[in-house]
Amino acid sequence: MTHPTSNQQVVLARRPAGAPRVDDFAVIESALPPLQDGEVLIENLFISLDAGFRKWMDEGSGDHILPAMEIGQPVMGLTLGRVVDSRHPDFAAGQHLMARLAWERYSVTDATDFLVVVPDQYDCPLNWHLGILGDTGMSAYFGLTDVARPQPGETAVISAAGGAVGSIAGQIARIYGARAVGIASGPDKCRRLIEELGYDAAVDRNGEDVVGALAEACPDGIDVYLDSVSGPLLELVLGQINPRARIALCGAVATYNAGAPLPGPSNLFQLVTNQATMTGFMTHLMHERYPEARQQLLDWIEEGKLVNREHMLHGIESVPTAFCDLFAGRNFGKTIVALS
Amino acid sequence: MTHPTSNQQVVLARRPAGAPRVDDFAVIESALPPLQDGEVLIENLFISLDAGFRKWMDEGSGDHILPAMEIGQPVMGLTLGRVVDSRHPDFAAGQHLMARLAWERYSVTDATDFLVVVPDQYDCPLNWHLGILGDTGMSAYFGLTDVARPQPGETAVISAAGGAVGSIAGQIARIYGARAVGIASGPDKCRRLIEELGYDAAVDRNGEDVVGALAEACPDGIDVYLDSVSGPLLELVLGQINPRARIALCGAVATYNAGAPLPGPSNLFQLVTNQATMTGFMTHLMHERYPEARQQLLDWIEEGKLVNREHMLHGIESVPTAFCDLFAGRNFGKTIVALS
Repeated sequence: MTHPTSNQQVVLARRPAGAPRVDDFAVIESALPPLQDGEVLIENLFISLDAGFRKWMDEGSGDHILPAMEIGQPVMGLTLGRVVDSRHPDFAAGQHLMARLAWERYSVTDATDFLVVVPDQYDCPLNWHLGILGDTGMSAYFGLTDVARPQPGETAVISAAGGAVGSIAGQIARIYGARAVGIASGPDKCRRLIEELGYDAAVDRNGEDVVGALAEACPDGIDVYLDSVSGPLLELVLGQINPRARIALCGAVATYNAGAPLPGPSNLFQLVTNQATMTGFMTHLMHERYPEARQQLLDWIEEGKLVNREHMLHGIESVPTAFCDLFAGRNFGKTIVALS
Repeated sequence: MTHPTSNQQVVLARRPAGAPRVDDFAVIESALPPLQDGEVLIENLFISLDAGFRKWMDEGSGDHILPAMEIGQPVMGLTLGRVVDSRHPDFAAGQHLMARLAWERYSVTDATDFLVVVPDQYDCPLNWHLGILGDTGMSAYFGLTDVARPQPGETAVISAAGGAVGSIAGQIARIYGARAVGIASGPDKCRRLIEELGYDAAVDRNGEDVVGALAEACPDGIDVYLDSVSGPLLELVLGQINPRARIALCGAVATYNAGAPLPGPSNLFQLVTNQATMTGFMTHLMHERYPEARQQLLDWIEEGKLVNREHMLHGIESVPTAFCDLFAGRNFGKTIVALS
């Protein structure tokens, strides 16, 4: 089998200061080493862009999930690729894998990295496994189905409502009979929330009177909040919750760019006076229920109740742009770069 | 029936700036008006001191529970008294009532105030109904039994551990098989937590390295936190929680003295990475289960598993001191003033 011998990789050119910029990254050509025993050669077909990876770009940000990224080294992310060759007993050429690997055309891994074989029982485009059937779809599904549980007639507010999680979550809230109110950046995105995703109302977080706009969009108060943003928006929503409100926290985009920790909401006492709950969750602990969730999401799409939106860019040169789009609010739906 | 014609009342002499001081209050003599149709005359026997009432001493602090208190007017609080005379069909002389009334020797009320007849099926001192069988005991009981649910072998941290709620909560956590760690002010109180209340360890929140002391007291991390303090302590505890931790919020003493809202914890994301839950609760919505809770608490006392501590002062002149003691950390157990 002939192997490619050269690779293209996106490396960290410098550590981002605040929101990442395209020139914080560089695309380089590099040599692809020959495959050793125990290794797998993967051609990456899609790269998933996820705001959460921003934090490992800071110095000393390593934790139990990933070490801090280093300048000049490939940027880590989530990829979906095809096994080109395998000298590892658990993997075979032709398999599709999702992996926590670098932003690069080809990856060579000894399989100590996070690798998952793409399930093949679903009749859908491969890239959906990075979005609606992947972590972001699972966050939307479990965040509402298990954690926040919107009831018919309740009001569910979704932050980053046009993002990968929010674009699905708002629709699920409506499927469960709730009124869905999305918070997003800019009038154009707010319009798309309503027209393309079926949100009942939208609030522009860059508007002049966000508190007033939220109150107007939620005349009966807020029962459910799916929060992937944290920061000042969380405080604002807490100010308008109803008794027994359920807040599901699945991310904190507002904090990823912050050099120092941001203060939390000053009105947490709202949880007490409203007997409300705030629950953090990460989907990977619900792994055994992914098949149920994936099938339900596909059924809803089939029934015309759910649409899947993607912000798809092409070519490895587009990866830095796609990543920066997440923080500039230019994405709508799941952000993915197709490499081939 | 002859009525008393003069009264003693504690009035707000000025609005407290930060922590209340004794001279923010004044004890005055006043005339007691004759009883009108539909009114009840109560002789107050005990006054319960509760930090939560501090907030209504601020200008414009009125809400759906109470209006803001006014300078020169009697201070509102929780009292336990005996009906001296009644011209209201629902109440009769001799009954014992708990009420949201003023800090005063006698109260005349048209029964639109919050009034509850003291249940008479419990064989215990009357004042226990303001403490271990009242809101604070109920907060400790339901905060642990229903909300935070410490399991055998887990570590439960209790803030304001020597206070009215905490002095009971630590003991309940141990009854449920958890290791109880109390946070309190000063080495003397910390010693009493261990010696008198059976806490496994105590952390002095005024100590030099509170983070380190908490980590040392909780070598296996924190599974449960019963928080009646909020503020910086909540952030500190969040930094040491375990996966699936449960935080029960029943108060926010740290914020009651703040002129402006205090920022919340900067590390709420700990809830996400630990799939942890923060739940606010107020006991009055569990009213129908008070008999169950009261009987259980009395049974535990009877079995020698639970001790009831009170910080009891005497005479109406002591009420301002007793209230200020709450904020100066001079109380240990439930703070009550006996009036007769």
